[in-house]
Amino acid sequence: MTIKDVAERSGVSVSTVSRVLNNHPDVSEAARSRVMETVRKLHYVPNNSARDLVRPQTAAIGLVVRGAGNPFFSGVIRAVEQEINAAGYTMVLHQIRSGEDELQAGAELARSKRLLGVILLGGCFDYTPEQTAALGIPFVCCSFTNSFGSLNKDAYSSVSIDDQAEAYRAVTFLIRQGHKNIAILLDSKQDHSISELRYRGYCQALLDAGIAPDTALVAEAGTFDMAAAYEGTCRLLRSQAEFTALFVIADSMAVAAMKALHDHGLRVPEDCSVIAIDGIDMSAYTIPTLTTLIQPVGAMGKESVHSLVDIIEGRGGNRHIQLRTALRPGGSVGAGPVFTSANDVKIKP
Amino acid sequence: MTIKDVAERSGVSVSTVSRVLNNHPDVSEAARSRVMETVRKLHYVPNNSARDLVRPQTAAIGLVVRGAGNPFFSGVIRAVEQEINAAGYTMVLHQIRSGEDELQAGAELARSKRLLGVILLGGCFDYTPEQTAALGIPFVCCSFTNSFGSLNKDAYSSVSIDDQAEAYRAVTFLIRQGHKNIAILLDSKQDHSISELRYRGYCQALLDAGIAPDTALVAEAGTFDMAAAYEGTCRLLRSQAEFTALFVIADSMAVAAMKALHDHGLRVPEDCSVIAIDGIDMSAYTIPTLTTLIQPVGAMGKESVHSLVDIIEGRGGNRHIQLRTALRPGGSVGAGPVFTSANDVKIKP
Repeated sequence: MTIKDVAERSGVSVSTVSRVLNNHPDVSEAARSRVMETVRKLHYVPNNSARDLVRPQTAAIGLVVRGAGNPFFSGVIRAVEQEINAAGYTMVLHQIRSGEDELQAGAELARSKRLLGVILLGGCFDYTPEQTAALGIPFVCCSFTNSFGSLNKDAYSSVSIDDQAEAYRAVTFLIRQGHKNIAILLDSKQDHSISELRYRGYCQALLDAGIAPDTALVAEAGTFDMAAAYEGTCRLLRSQAEFTALFVIADSMAVAAMKALHDHGLRVPEDCSVIAIDGIDMSAYTIPTLTTLIQPVGAMGKESVHSLVDIIEGRGGNRHIQLRTALRPGGSVGAGPVFTSANDVKIKP
Repeated sequence: MTIKDVAERSGVSVSTVSRVLNNHPDVSEAARSRVMETVRKLHYVPNNSARDLVRPQTAAIGLVVRGAGNPFFSGVIRAVEQEINAAGYTMVLHQIRSGEDELQAGAELARSKRLLGVILLGGCFDYTPEQTAALGIPFVCCSFTNSFGSLNKDAYSSVSIDDQAEAYRAVTFLIRQGHKNIAILLDSKQDHSISELRYRGYCQALLDAGIAPDTALVAEAGTFDMAAAYEGTCRLLRSQAEFTALFVIADSMAVAAMKALHDHGLRVPEDCSVIAIDGIDMSAYTIPTLTTLIQPVGAMGKESVHSLVDIIEGRGGNRHIQLRTALRPGGSVGAGPVFTSANDVKIKP
């Protein structure tokens, strides 16, 4: 397999193939797209010693992970890497802390590594066109959307769940088990991000069931760390607020919340039911097993790469994909007081 | 900052800098090492539009992770990425399943991405010189060593803990709490790998305390998966073997084992103490908190990169670094029957 074969199959000259693979600007979009598809299909790997060296590193896609250490991201990273490799590109990974700026990190990576596109895994929901202009390459918001921002839908791609609807679903599940006093553990009520969307879903579910949301039942951890989630739950418990169920916006935070409930002498689910969203591996082994809405991490990574590669290879523009979660019933949700005392009807979790 | 500045500071010609950064063979090791150090120190980023383009992608270091999804690896990956970036190189990450061949994956990556070196995170302990020859570049075994293989010590670098000694330490901790019937949960007794080394440490600790190892107390999960660890523990429990403590070779497996004990109606630590090795974030939030020997993941990643970069930049040869764990006492280890019944002495975990 040589650069000549690639040229022949693509119906272009060798120098065009070379220009495409070296990212030269003077190539038509049609030629670029044909060459990239051939390279991908033939799994073309260049001969290192040749003078007309084609560098596969030039065909790099970035993955900027904001919130390194979030166990939910591990599965997405694996899926993204697999799909990028399968598509014939190289993944350049960069992990930053939650407090850092993913757009700046992405822009620097795009320049220094000559990326063709970038996937942002975790990020802000309120980008402006001015902010994202610095990237200068196609990008996909993976696991989030621009719900609070001002981007034109055509200016970016996204693959996510409907955070508000899924939170609504989790809280409605608790209400149907007979719970009325339902607390929530989140990062922040007004972070213009995932927390705020899931908080909206929580409030809407309560309102639709005729229950007035009570701010005394809102525990803000301030971050997504397990340590902060543990402390946030402890503060809620010390406040003497009364609740029989807790909706936690992430599995890892729920694991810490269950530990805090236990350390305060409360049993799950007898004294307090717990439900979350994510479906990380570990949450299947908590005691009791966490009831959670499992995010489709494999599909999320896969769709993100497909969206980006289609743009890079000239097959259409930006698109927005919404995926659904799947409920995994565990032992962490029990019947609420409506059934256990008032109506004396028992519902098994 | 231009390629001329790099040449001036390194005391070589512009064409030599270009040859080094494009990985041409006709450069002396001394010149290569001087240029790479200058690039690193100056954080030189090439100008994309220049004709004499210097590609930072050529200065790539690979990280092959065998056992993608192992939560212990997450912390190491973050540390490795941070150090590779800090050293001025690009990390190319490739994650494979435990069943796959890390040497083959590394060799392919080395060729297709023109790596200068590769870090293997997780891999076999029994390489032969013939097997590793395929890599053709310097490599570091991160978190493991060549204990069962035939490599010359000068042919590779390693950064790891002393698996046998640390297992010995964990089991001795249980013995000192008064336990005599101590079971072990591992991948396999004879995998010529981490399991076998930790199994040796387990046996040695028992023997040194005058306790005969009993194969009825060995639970082989067959993999490191949590699902397999859960099943392995269930088989041990169904076998009616008698034990008051369990040493698990990895934290994530211990989380699953604690779930299995609970599902069989046993309390930790009252009916069975549990100790492990790793120190993953999640194990601080099990109920009770897992007692474990924490591996220094940050130092492990950092030392691996430093060892490799020193070789790439011509500062010395292969080296072998052994790090120590730190005991985190949790609530999962209680006093054994020697103290609780026979001697009536209570030791708090």
